[in-house]
Amino acid sequence: MSSTEVFAVLMAGGSGTRFWPASRRALPKQYLPIGTQKPLIRETFERLAGLVEPAHVLVVASRSHKKLVRALLPELPETNLLLEPVGRNTTPCIAWAASAIEQRAPASVQIVLPSDHVIHPAARFRELLATAVAAAAREELLITLGVQPSEPAMGFGYIECGEPRAGGLRTVRRFVEKPERARAEEFLRSGNFLWNAGIFVWSTAAILAALQRFAPQTLAGARKLDRAPGRAQFARLESISIDKSVMERASNVCVIPLPLEWNDVGSWNALPESSGPSAAGGGALLALESSNCIAYAPPGEVVALLGVRDLVVVHAGKVTLVCPRERAQDVRALVAAMEQRDKRFV
Amino acid sequence: MSSTEVFAVLMAGGSGTRFWPASRRALPKQYLPIGTQKPLIRETFERLAGLVEPAHVLVVASRSHKKLVRALLPELPETNLLLEPVGRNTTPCIAWAASAIEQRAPASVQIVLPSDHVIHPAARFRELLATAVAAAAREELLITLGVQPSEPAMGFGYIECGEPRAGGLRTVRRFVEKPERARAEEFLRSGNFLWNAGIFVWSTAAILAALQRFAPQTLAGARKLDRAPGRAQFARLESISIDKSVMERASNVCVIPLPLEWNDVGSWNALPESSGPSAAGGGALLALESSNCIAYAPPGEVVALLGVRDLVVVHAGKVTLVCPRERAQDVRALVAAMEQRDKRFV
Repeated sequence: MSSTEVFAVLMAGGSGTRFWPASRRALPKQYLPIGTQKPLIRETFERLAGLVEPAHVLVVASRSHKKLVRALLPELPETNLLLEPVGRNTTPCIAWAASAIEQRAPASVQIVLPSDHVIHPAARFRELLATAVAAAAREELLITLGVQPSEPAMGFGYIECGEPRAGGLRTVRRFVEKPERARAEEFLRSGNFLWNAGIFVWSTAAILAALQRFAPQTLAGARKLDRAPGRAQFARLESISIDKSVMERASNVCVIPLPLEWNDVGSWNALPESSGPSAAGGGALLALESSNCIAYAPPGEVVALLGVRDLVVVHAGKVTLVCPRERAQDVRALVAAMEQRDKRFV
Repeated sequence: MSSTEVFAVLMAGGSGTRFWPASRRALPKQYLPIGTQKPLIRETFERLAGLVEPAHVLVVASRSHKKLVRALLPELPETNLLLEPVGRNTTPCIAWAASAIEQRAPASVQIVLPSDHVIHPAARFRELLATAVAAAAREELLITLGVQPSEPAMGFGYIECGEPRAGGLRTVRRFVEKPERARAEEFLRSGNFLWNAGIFVWSTAAILAALQRFAPQTLAGARKLDRAPGRAQFARLESISIDKSVMERASNVCVIPLPLEWNDVGSWNALPESSGPSAAGGGALLALESSNCIAYAPPGEVVALLGVRDLVVVHAGKVTLVCPRERAQDVRALVAAMEQRDKRFV
């Protein structure tokens, strides 16, 4: 087992609008420091240091962000960058990366993870990943990581745990879509549900076998892709999440609880309260008689607050955004309206 | 009387901090469009068009803003620009301008006015000024313009009117400092009080005579100044308002009611509610489910609001300010705090 090669696949294809105006089409959230020192993708890359060597990290990103990835991850061999001409959800992305890794090291184990989550502490995260890697090297398992819920969140999918297995794993009884409030509270009380973090560990053989069974056309298409496929070729692959295509249907799925600080950085409201002198993003925050606000500004720029509370205030480029924290997930509506008004700011 | 030469003195020496972060030390409010299409000083200049010819407009401004004045008022002869090395309130400014005008046209009438007020409609304002000019040409009067109060404002000085005189003038019973709420309400009810707008009309002879009587040292000092005096020389003049030095003491003071829309643009809260698509300052405003906010952004920049109300939101340069409208006058506290933190943003 000590000879198992470990690969990582960083999924960076997202183009979310929920961090507008800091994030733009040309600069999605994973390329920004959002409540972190470094851009999220850089933090994710460094979080794996010691567990996965840079030569074994593959990044699947949008073709339009190639330069960003190269600049932020200069250690990454250029051949490890897979460029999507269009976003097609996680199944094509995972199938493509799996077949690329198959060509190099068919006996390897893979860690597949979003590039835009915050996880602390990194050392403990690596320990848990190492446990999962060892399990995946031993058995043909599809391992997903589940986050211990801290509140009855309605914004995440849930995983109901089944029987305990060796190595801290649990079987998975079922995946549950984002629940209503009452159900989410029930899940939290039961103690048997975890948030689906979208982080996976499996052997290359295991994921290829699962894709062959549950998404054979996508796998066949992915095997034909070079590192920068054309739009038509890529768009032919079915746009579906790996949860839907494989995880909810396979019988060899397990989960490892992740008893860590985890944040999917899903909206401005996911950031901790800003307290001076620094704003999220590296700029300055000057706040007088203000409380429970989230402030963002890039280095060299300033957010100044006087007598306000519970607000999100973002100064980014030529745009200022202000909304209540509880409305942060509705920022998309502003982006949609901006799209109609002036595309330069989207 | 038709041969009376009319001069205007634009007082532009202010360096207020209440419009931070749009206004900065290097760019005070009078040089910005604040709720107007053009910079306030430009609007003030154009408001006099037809009544005072550009060659008869003098501007008293801070030495450090010379280039701004030249750029915004290119019609102004360079010799009409009096540059204060340091602010000394209105008496030295008025004495200096009066003695400069005396050298050119001792028989003239002057209109002396702040460069940073908003007055509508301009044509009606010019009519009232013409009435005052005619009265000042006839008699040795010190005429002040009084604004019809629309609310019991506590931020202005008041003028109590006395007997009616010819040409719509009233004698002045007394000047009253900024009142408490109850007194302001009483003033409003009585119908006999006007806001002191700091706009004056007098003959050059009348103001020189008054200064000779009530501020002889300042007048003597002002008469020795060239157009760009040294700091020590100017600082020797007593820093005192013309209200205190002359208007509250002279017996030939009259007032003309100004039944117009007048705004001294004293704080962000003095601006009208912003409604999209334009922010004050010429930028864009994108507001969803928001009400009663004041938004400012320069051209090419954007304020985006979602689900907020009663806020001041300013995007200016590298700074965003957010505060409740009712706290707008406390922005100075932020400026003071910023001064300690990083002078680049003040």
